[in-house]
Amino acid sequence: MSKGARTKETIVAAAMKAASVEGFNGLSIGNLATRLGMSKSGLFAHFGSKEELQKAVMDASSQLFLDAVWKPARATPRGLPRLRKLFDLWLAWMDSNPDLPGGCILTAAATEMDDKPGPVRDKLVAMQNEWMATLARGAELAVNEGHFRADLDCQQFAFELSGIVFSLSFYTRLLRDPQARFRAEAAFDDLIRRAAPAPAIQLANDI
Amino acid sequence: MSKGARTKETIVAAAMKAASVEGFNGLSIGNLATRLGMSKSGLFAHFGSKEELQKAVMDASSQLFLDAVWKPARATPRGLPRLRKLFDLWLAWMDSNPDLPGGCILTAAATEMDDKPGPVRDKLVAMQNEWMATLARGAELAVNEGHFRADLDCQQFAFELSGIVFSLSFYTRLLRDPQARFRAEAAFDDLIRRAAPAPAIQLANDI
Repeated sequence: MSKGARTKETIVAAAMKAASVEGFNGLSIGNLATRLGMSKSGLFAHFGSKEELQKAVMDASSQLFLDAVWKPARATPRGLPRLRKLFDLWLAWMDSNPDLPGGCILTAAATEMDDKPGPVRDKLVAMQNEWMATLARGAELAVNEGHFRADLDCQQFAFELSGIVFSLSFYTRLLRDPQARFRAEAAFDDLIRRAAPAPAIQLANDI
Repeated sequence: MSKGARTKETIVAAAMKAASVEGFNGLSIGNLATRLGMSKSGLFAHFGSKEELQKAVMDASSQLFLDAVWKPARATPRGLPRLRKLFDLWLAWMDSNPDLPGGCILTAAATEMDDKPGPVRDKLVAMQNEWMATLARGAELAVNEGHFRADLDCQQFAFELSGIVFSLSFYTRLLRDPQARFRAEAAFDDLIRRAAPAPAIQLANDI
């Protein structure tokens, strides 16, 4: 890796930590330069604008997320085992991450960026739509494997699964409720149970 | 109302609109003074610090929310009718509000403030804990009325109900998914169905 590429990586990692605590819009090239002992113009040589830096931070967080959650899940057998693995890893990701001391940037960015039209918002929307599609596709594979019922609304599954994770994040990070993880797991188990195929009708000989 | 109280109200209303779009931490006394055609020191005469202003904005948004959602719901018969009313009004609140063009401040503040210890965060946590307790209490009343089963975990109900609303907010405000409201309603109907008492066992004469 060239010296320039290494410096760029260092800047993005520091920006990611800062954005995790200060928020996405709280990112300041000036503060970041001070923290890294660089000049503001030196930092600008790598990222021409705050927007460019924000997009690089989004790419880097997304890469961390995919490496921590999606890649190991994808290596698990498709269908229910993969969804369970994905959910466990997603909880672990939300729980604690040394690279993101203030929690998942992409979750926080969702409310921060929703009213800020532009390329940064567009990038976030594309990423999040892709993740929702991945969740729905995960449910579809479970239908194909016979783990979920054939008439399951897989988009609805993705909507409800996301809701569980949003609620977990709120109960954990804001309310610091020690029951949060237990509640998220109970909600997920119930979501899975509702998606299961109807049991075969048994003739009740003993009635 | 005194002139001072009216001016204070005008400042808070403008700050609420600004925070709704710019975020809670994006609130700037300087920008606000410019917008209102006031001097920065004039504004400081009413709110001694950004923190004081943030707390006043939280109180005002909470009041709006209670007036729009909780008070009309409380006027509905307790149990399931009240929960349905509460949910409908909550969706309407998330949907659009001329006082909050950038959406619910208290939702956005949850991710903005989670890593910022201090009196503003403490106030938000107290408000949100109270709201979660109100949701759980609403479910308890439905149990008492016989609309929900006696062994329902009412805290779990509140956790899952919140998740539906968080997901709605994400799908609506960020993804602009036209199906979002439909999905939230379907998830709520299912939550209600799962909370219902088990049907009385019918002896099947026709088997």
